[in-house]
Amino acid sequence: MATSDRASLRRKSRIKIADEWLRQILSLLYRRRNLSRIEIVEITGLNAASVSHALRYLLARGVLHKAGDCNGNAGRRREVFTLNAEAGYFVALDLEGDRLRFALTNFVGDVRCRWEESLRFREPLLPEKVVDGIRNVTRDLDQPQLSRVLAVGVSYPGLLDAEGRLSAVNLGWTKVPLSAVLKEAFPWPVFQERDKETCIHAESWLGAAQKYRNALFLIAEGGIGMGILADRKHLTGTRGFSGEIGHCKFVPGAEDLCNCGQRGCLEAIASGVNIVRQYAERSGVASDRFRFVDVLEKARRGDSIARTVFERAGRAIGSALSTAIGLLDPEIVILGGDLIVAEDVMLPIIWDQVRLLTRPRSLEIVKIVVSGLGLDIRLKGAAALAFRNMLENPELVQRMCAPVLAQREVNALA
Amino acid sequence: MATSDRASLRRKSRIKIADEWLRQILSLLYRRRNLSRIEIVEITGLNAASVSHALRYLLARGVLHKAGDCNGNAGRRREVFTLNAEAGYFVALDLEGDRLRFALTNFVGDVRCRWEESLRFREPLLPEKVVDGIRNVTRDLDQPQLSRVLAVGVSYPGLLDAEGRLSAVNLGWTKVPLSAVLKEAFPWPVFQERDKETCIHAESWLGAAQKYRNALFLIAEGGIGMGILADRKHLTGTRGFSGEIGHCKFVPGAEDLCNCGQRGCLEAIASGVNIVRQYAERSGVASDRFRFVDVLEKARRGDSIARTVFERAGRAIGSALSTAIGLLDPEIVILGGDLIVAEDVMLPIIWDQVRLLTRPRSLEIVKIVVSGLGLDIRLKGAAALAFRNMLENPELVQRMCAPVLAQREVNALA
Repeated sequence: MATSDRASLRRKSRIKIADEWLRQILSLLYRRRNLSRIEIVEITGLNAASVSHALRYLLARGVLHKAGDCNGNAGRRREVFTLNAEAGYFVALDLEGDRLRFALTNFVGDVRCRWEESLRFREPLLPEKVVDGIRNVTRDLDQPQLSRVLAVGVSYPGLLDAEGRLSAVNLGWTKVPLSAVLKEAFPWPVFQERDKETCIHAESWLGAAQKYRNALFLIAEGGIGMGILADRKHLTGTRGFSGEIGHCKFVPGAEDLCNCGQRGCLEAIASGVNIVRQYAERSGVASDRFRFVDVLEKARRGDSIARTVFERAGRAIGSALSTAIGLLDPEIVILGGDLIVAEDVMLPIIWDQVRLLTRPRSLEIVKIVVSGLGLDIRLKGAAALAFRNMLENPELVQRMCAPVLAQREVNALA
Repeated sequence: MATSDRASLRRKSRIKIADEWLRQILSLLYRRRNLSRIEIVEITGLNAASVSHALRYLLARGVLHKAGDCNGNAGRRREVFTLNAEAGYFVALDLEGDRLRFALTNFVGDVRCRWEESLRFREPLLPEKVVDGIRNVTRDLDQPQLSRVLAVGVSYPGLLDAEGRLSAVNLGWTKVPLSAVLKEAFPWPVFQERDKETCIHAESWLGAAQKYRNALFLIAEGGIGMGILADRKHLTGTRGFSGEIGHCKFVPGAEDLCNCGQRGCLEAIASGVNIVRQYAERSGVASDRFRFVDVLEKARRGDSIARTVFERAGRAIGSALSTAIGLLDPEIVILGGDLIVAEDVMLPIIWDQVRLLTRPRSLEIVKIVVSGLGLDIRLKGAAALAFRNMLENPELVQRMCAPVLAQREVNALA
């Protein structure tokens, strides 16, 4: 075979590797962390030679390394592969809630550096503050590390219009061109995703929904929202307004005033701030004297007012879940936000109500669990968003491979 | 160009026509009935030469004909194309409800012959009865027509297992291998679809949901169920149990006993038979003395008991729709079954309740309409199912083209 033919073949096979195999193997290792060659073959369905080829390619470029050996079924030792956590970095932003959250994550989504910025109530946030936040989390990187920051992932609340401008109540923003601002300030591509979508994708990639095609994610914070995974796809609805279960009514005649101006919405009864509000109203103690976790602690200690408030909130959430389960036939329901710390108090009430209202057949396969991803869920989700999008972008995949190779070559030369 | 090259090219182009272009053009004409060449080009996005080529091919084989001319914008006359209604036939089955419904439809889904078979309460249906029903609707076809029966479409209630065996309460069936029975009795391929799916597909193909990507279809008959179209795909859920809104609870504390054994289910309050039951209970008249339409007529005439019953049923449906709209952000909600005849009485109550409970933002784009497809919706849907599947099957497409051509050739020879 002529040299030029070989070179051309190598070029071709490199191009071929650089897409589908790499994408499948990298995304699998991102989700599962440690896998043997045989497991990778089994799960991806790729043939063994392709997998070996791609693994060699990624090992040579420092994107993977061997995490050690394990014993196979036949007693033979198998190599286990894992992503090199320092093969690249991502900037992750969580713009939901009353605090902006910024993170620099490593290649596998672990937070390496974080920054938070409080929002002032009813005071519009300057977009420059977002630029500053990113500067703060990337400040300590040296030049080789900076060159390996691959992309920015943003989890946003509110609504992004067709021109990429964001409107969000908590930020005080109307049509702010966030992505354009970030692209002007930094050399990195910016990927954006709606908060509910980030949560359900994070659960589907990294959390409790990994093994399921149909999942619901209910998050209770300032508000209450639902992410819906149907046949492994996030369901957006016509205008991105799906999952607005926080403004549905499950307690007829309830007079609780909601942020949206309506009365009796689920979130006006069951969100953290509204649990505090109801406790204050019923106990006569001013609501600025305690926080959600204080009411929770009172409920744990048997305080009857606190228990009544949690009972009401949990039943409302249970009614909502019962309907969502009946409509959508999921395998798993994941609870996030304030429901994570309140699992011991809320989950039994929620289950009672779900069992009371739901047709047994609809419940046969359903699990209800709290999220294991904690309060960083949207940061982790934003990093995963950036990682996923990187895999679709050949130029970024090249950058991911290049600098680590350069570093190895430097070492080899030294 | 050598003759064999030309022949090979022609063969290739015929194969090419026989898939994607044909599929797009035929499915478009099935849905829209009459279209000009330019409209076909615009809607399919195919290039004009491909469309002309495919139209010539289909015209020559008698699958299409010209429906006449219309005046174009520039005053030029344009040819309008339509499917030849007799290019093929389909058998359509609707197994839901208390009567089996069989139809022979022509190529465009119009019912040419129908047969109904009453089910006896709690008496399992013999599968042979289904075979007999199909014999009844195909009995009068002559041999050339019989050769053009292309496929059987079945809309089924209940649950089909992985081995193709059907379990359905109304039929008294547990794991009956219907498809195998039909394939043994007839030479036609059998395509099956769940009833809720048939309805939403029928609306999406032929009815009010044609122009929409996100739609809900609520049908109230013996029971109440919902078909969900999300991003133009029917949402099935994990086990095909999505849309079980009939067994969700929207009237807390309601004691109405449901067929499923629970109390207060939506269908125990708002289905036709339960409207009759409630009228009987409140008026003291035995329920076998009147039907749903009689109670409806009383409500129209201002009978206060009838109005109260419809008010309760309409409000329960409105509550259900409010939650479904909040969760799924659809563009249109279509009401079917008993709600079609009761539109004048029920729709204003339903709308009142939906407006009362739903966040205005969620309602901005939503229309609520009654189905225009009437009681034949599942028969039409089953025929459309067979048509769609035919287009995916090269052998059936060949059969669709062949016999009409043969007929034309016979005529030309005569």
